[in-house]
Amino acid sequence: MFDLHEHPHTRLNLLTGDWILVSPHRTKRPWQGKVETLPPDNRPSYDPKCYLCPGNERADGSINPVYKDSFVFTNDFSALLYDTPHGEINIDDLLKAQSEKGICRVISFSPDHSLTLPLLSVEGIEKVIELWQKEFKDLSSDPSIRYIQIFENKGEIMGCSNPHPHGQIWASSSLPLELVKETREQKKYWEEKGRSLLSDYIQLELKQKERLVLENEHFVALVPFWAVWPYETMIVSKRHLQNILQFTDEEKTAFADILKKLTAKYDNLFEISFPYSAGMHQAPVNDEEHPEWHWHMHFYPPLLRSATVKKFMVGYEMLANPQRDVTAEWAAERLRSLSEVHYKEKVS
Amino acid sequence: MFDLHEHPHTRLNLLTGDWILVSPHRTKRPWQGKVETLPPDNRPSYDPKCYLCPGNERADGSINPVYKDSFVFTNDFSALLYDTPHGEINIDDLLKAQSEKGICRVISFSPDHSLTLPLLSVEGIEKVIELWQKEFKDLSSDPSIRYIQIFENKGEIMGCSNPHPHGQIWASSSLPLELVKETREQKKYWEEKGRSLLSDYIQLELKQKERLVLENEHFVALVPFWAVWPYETMIVSKRHLQNILQFTDEEKTAFADILKKLTAKYDNLFEISFPYSAGMHQAPVNDEEHPEWHWHMHFYPPLLRSATVKKFMVGYEMLANPQRDVTAEWAAERLRSLSEVHYKEKVS
Ligand SMILES: O=P(O)(O)O[C@H]1O[C@H](CO)[C@@H](O)[C@H](O)[C@H]1O
Ligand SMILES: O=P(O)(O)O[C@H]1O[C@H](CO)[C@@H](O)[C@H](O)[C@H]1O
Repeated sequence: MFDLHEHPHTRLNLLTGDWILVSPHRTKRPWQGKVETLPPDNRPSYDPKCYLCPGNERADGSINPVYKDSFVFTNDFSALLYDTPHGEINIDDLLKAQSEKGICRVISFSPDHSLTLPLLSVEGIEKVIELWQKEFKDLSSDPSIRYIQIFENKGEIMGCSNPHPHGQIWASSSLPLELVKETREQKKYWEEKGRSLLSDYIQLELKQKERLVLENEHFVALVPFWAVWPYETMIVSKRHLQNILQFTDEEKTAFADILKKLTAKYDNLFEISFPYSAGMHQAPVNDEEHPEWHWHMHFYPPLLRSATVKKFMVGYEMLANPQRDVTAEWAAERLRSLSEVHYKEKVS
Repeated sequence: MFDLHEHPHTRLNLLTGDWILVSPHRTKRPWQGKVETLPPDNRPSYDPKCYLCPGNERADGSINPVYKDSFVFTNDFSALLYDTPHGEINIDDLLKAQSEKGICRVISFSPDHSLTLPLLSVEGIEKVIELWQKEFKDLSSDPSIRYIQIFENKGEIMGCSNPHPHGQIWASSSLPLELVKETREQKKYWEEKGRSLLSDYIQLELKQKERLVLENEHFVALVPFWAVWPYETMIVSKRHLQNILQFTDEEKTAFADILKKLTAKYDNLFEISFPYSAGMHQAPVNDEEHPEWHWHMHFYPPLLRSATVKKFMVGYEMLANPQRDVTAEWAAERLRSLSEVHYKEKVS
């Protein structure tokens, strides 16, 4: 009989409409491949050469303020620029291009060079959330902006070019690919059932329990049924919200709380500062109404076997289909079993 | 005025229907992030501990034959298994899964542990192509197989777990994601115009020339207009063919020739054994007719600035939209300017 925990199979990603390949039996494979080196895990609170620390000089010659909480500025090397002239190219329907305008911001999470999210206090994380809200509001007040992507690349293995804990915001004039897909799938469900896709999905997960990682009054953290990265997770608001501006104060605190606990569990998994790319998905802005949209946050961590052996999304995954070696249920159990208290904050 | 070589913009990938983001101005960004270590580049012709070398023992205890050309066997740790029981799961349309069966093969390109594709002779590469053809034929004679993915992960940075030059073949009972997209887009074009999408596309590229890298009588190698990886390329057959079995003898030789030259150029770029994932896309098998399908091969190399600094497809790319820092035209020019003769094969 077909068994999800034993046999190769595909699973549907409800948010994108794509199927992913699961090979539950494959972890037995020996590894003679690449072993990553670990970045140093004993950063000082202040680094005179860091362009994110308070009072230091940045690439463009400006001096950072001596900030107390978090701090935001426009990326000195933005991928999106605000003054892009409008235009498009179409040669025989074969070469098609469109100009894209936007704004890229960098957010330093704290003046302290050593404090990643799980090591900040809940109040410290609340300050970061408030800055995300403020930026979301500011950026969406510009009518040329259609989508605001708030994200963090953590760890040098995830292309993070400065170890000072920070996130980024890229706001664009068109809807990025992943958002086109998630909007389409949520809309389909909304129009058919009159309920949000993620409300129904988390109801079922709260009942089944096997993919849950954390829960508080306002949020759920789980390994989605269709996760592709080994320890991929998603935080979903229990209330059907379109964006971060709709959080109540209580929700803001609950979000800070679940963020701290989830990232502490991640660090506890291999007792290192756990690398990932993470980011929120929210409704487009300056657009039609999006009642279908349900706020959530994805975590895509690259590690598979240990602190130094990652999952490679290469060959087959790039050319054919994303593939994973352990089941979502197995990963959720592993994460559930870990302490919510960071290994560096444990009182012994 | 909007200029493709100066301003941020999006470009349409004709094969997938997805748009990608190009930030031509972004290479000026300084890099304080991860610097890769280089694997040793002086492999012996035979390694007694390699499970792909002739006469050596494999993980399952079997002994490799003392093979002369290339050699194929079923992967000892296959992600797809042939005896998967049929079945599917659907809970409230929210948890959807389907069993997947298939076969995974490993192809050693040559008995010599040190010879990557660009270092094989054209005749040596022809032997590899013949084995690909034989495997394609064998695997497609099984009515439960729907798609055959032939690919290579080269270099440990691309998750390659054994440095002995080899490729893989994963044959599956359903059509993988990328192939669903490419089938859909090619079909749309075929039904509308009665010509193959890639025939029209390469006609235009042969005229415009700025994205060409190599050309011979039967194949073109170019940086596609919509490339996302910095030095991404594609080999396309001039004749509209559905799969590798339709190659004439002349086409087989021409394909070996362009494969050798393209991979030699890649190695010459940074004078290292250049890492990539590469693979052919061909029509599905045991399926309806696919007159729209046009054989091609993609190369996805990860390096950006140097032998040790790669492009990270992380944060924004995973959560929102693939993004590149140099234009396709710039990369094509760089590749065009390099010798077709491998730096190790140069007579001085
Ligand atoms: O099969 P291998 O070489 O052990 O593994 C490599 O290629 C596979 C197919 O692209 C990937 O799934 C693995 O992540 C990668 O490490
Ligand atoms: O902007 P950074 O931190 O310099 O760069 C990092 O994040 C970006 C957004 O995900 C990516 O495009 C880069 O490849 C990555 O190195």
